[in-house]
Amino acid sequence: MSTITIIGAGMMGSAIAWPLADNGHDVRLVGTHLDQEIIDSIQKSRLHPKLKRAMPDKVSAFSHTEISKAVEGADLIISGVSSFGVEWFAEKVGPFMTPEVPVLAITKGLFAKENGDLQILPDHMNELLPEAKKGKISLNAVAGPCIAQELSARRQTCVYFTGRNEAVLKHLRSLFATPYYHILVSTDFIGSEAGVAMKNAYSICINFPIGVYQKEGPDGIAHMYNPQAALFAQSMREMRKLVDLLGGQREGLIELSGSGDLYVTVFGGRNANLGILLGQNNSYAEALKVLAGVTLEGVEIMTRVCKALPKLEARGLAKQADFPLLMHLYQVIHENAQVNIPWEKFFSDILL
Amino acid sequence: MSTITIIGAGMMGSAIAWPLADNGHDVRLVGTHLDQEIIDSIQKSRLHPKLKRAMPDKVSAFSHTEISKAVEGADLIISGVSSFGVEWFAEKVGPFMTPEVPVLAITKGLFAKENGDLQILPDHMNELLPEAKKGKISLNAVAGPCIAQELSARRQTCVYFTGRNEAVLKHLRSLFATPYYHILVSTDFIGSEAGVAMKNAYSICINFPIGVYQKEGPDGIAHMYNPQAALFAQSMREMRKLVDLLGGQREGLIELSGSGDLYVTVFGGRNANLGILLGQNNSYAEALKVLAGVTLEGVEIMTRVCKALPKLEARGLAKQADFPLLMHLYQVIHENAQVNIPWEKFFSDILL
Repeated sequence: MSTITIIGAGMMGSAIAWPLADNGHDVRLVGTHLDQEIIDSIQKSRLHPKLKRAMPDKVSAFSHTEISKAVEGADLIISGVSSFGVEWFAEKVGPFMTPEVPVLAITKGLFAKENGDLQILPDHMNELLPEAKKGKISLNAVAGPCIAQELSARRQTCVYFTGRNEAVLKHLRSLFATPYYHILVSTDFIGSEAGVAMKNAYSICINFPIGVYQKEGPDGIAHMYNPQAALFAQSMREMRKLVDLLGGQREGLIELSGSGDLYVTVFGGRNANLGILLGQNNSYAEALKVLAGVTLEGVEIMTRVCKALPKLEARGLAKQADFPLLMHLYQVIHENAQVNIPWEKFFSDILL
Repeated sequence: MSTITIIGAGMMGSAIAWPLADNGHDVRLVGTHLDQEIIDSIQKSRLHPKLKRAMPDKVSAFSHTEISKAVEGADLIISGVSSFGVEWFAEKVGPFMTPEVPVLAITKGLFAKENGDLQILPDHMNELLPEAKKGKISLNAVAGPCIAQELSARRQTCVYFTGRNEAVLKHLRSLFATPYYHILVSTDFIGSEAGVAMKNAYSICINFPIGVYQKEGPDGIAHMYNPQAALFAQSMREMRKLVDLLGGQREGLIELSGSGDLYVTVFGGRNANLGILLGQNNSYAEALKVLAGVTLEGVEIMTRVCKALPKLEARGLAKQADFPLLMHLYQVIHENAQVNIPWEKFFSDILL
């Protein structure tokens, strides 16, 4: 049995404790400074207030002031923070990392450098580590379709563990694999991570037609599958182009971390709700009021990529015209444009 | 303006008349022997009883006894029959085909030869034509996500026109393209057609968890995204292997005719309902009673492929183990097995 420390006690960081606890590992769940209410609740009654479920007995909860104690002797450190917490994680946990203890991140996102270069978050994390540790820590990630509540209900779930070292990934798999948590290991680090990052942005767009339909009023057909399917396909096309741009493979994209994850994210969730509100012709500011308090990683990743694309185009590395749906989302969010899906820009060329 | 004859007055054959009529073409809609009520209704009141909508003025309706009159002088013939009607179509319409008049089929499916070889339906159709016409008729197809009712409501829809001659496909596109009907032409005939054919079968499987969940009773989470997304990804993987087996490309599969079309088919529709009923632990015979009278193309295509696979494996051309989800569906449908998704067979290998 191993000792595993999870930093970040949000829904997903906490839910991943279930397969670990079921495998008999000791799990230390550490809240960030934003998670104190959650940690207090678990320490008092074992109830995770967001998952609405008692944490397994093998899980002990720690405050953000106890990081050094919580990582001491750990065999694995899990980064359960959101993309907004990557810098915080590197600063607070980086000093305790050692080459013998791998790190597994559930964080989704991409980082854009000043010159437009896009990086997967584990590579960005590496650059944020203390100088002596750069390049020495095994940084890995979980990618793929997983709703935290369902994992904590032990629903059948399949994900990728992705990184650059197959042996490490297989070891990590051995810690987590249960009859309900299925793990495929993939060394297509860039392809897997780019897919899961971008799906949050595209799931906003795929929900535009729902909002447009509600605005226009029902016409006797209770769904919008044709436009949604077309946007799903266009999203897959643009994600494929982005994976090519970053130098990843395409296999992962086709399956779990692309189409499978996009499929999950299109339904429910905050990015989906934002798409519906924008489709109803609300401005982004109006939509934000309705969605008060939610973290919109889809907006963040879209903004980073859309600001990077002109820089990459100027350097001859990318074409903004390859991403008409993402660029439209940028205009809707940042330039107050109305949703008006640029269908004519999707299909200008023969496919093959 | 052109004259276009559609053979088959079901939902999809009829719905495709909308973009044609909007472009000013004369459309002749011919019912099969199964469509007589539909034709009678259109001739009497213009109402299409299944689409629940009046046909456009440019559409005239013909009985199956009037095929020769309806195809006389046509610039294009559309096959709007289901996969069960391909032989009928070849027999009844084949004699009137000429090299100058292209054929465009909306039929989805695959044909399995006695030795296990799998063919896309247009290639099967070619073999069914009168001897003198074999290899001389331009056979093309529509592929991709399109719900007929939504097309007839002029909802935004994107499809592939696919075949082997780019110039013909572009000409066909010019007849159909409207501000709501977007057409991408693809010469990846096999890849596009295999994707749209198989998606009917896989959409049954992706709905298994819904039925299982209803059977087990709710646990406070009103969805099954994790298992459905995992099955979506596994479906994409098996479809990719089938496209490889048939010698198609993968690009189309990633986009409209694969993930986009699968996305549509997973929701609602008869294949989806069958999956839910089977997941609830109904036998196929019991499910058929509930679904009385519906055409189950997903079952047909699965049966053809699963019966072909052992023959192909014996010839060293395929491995049944590459299709664990499809083979499980075969057992549930034909061997009265209970739904018990073979998760452990999905992820036995490293991905890349």
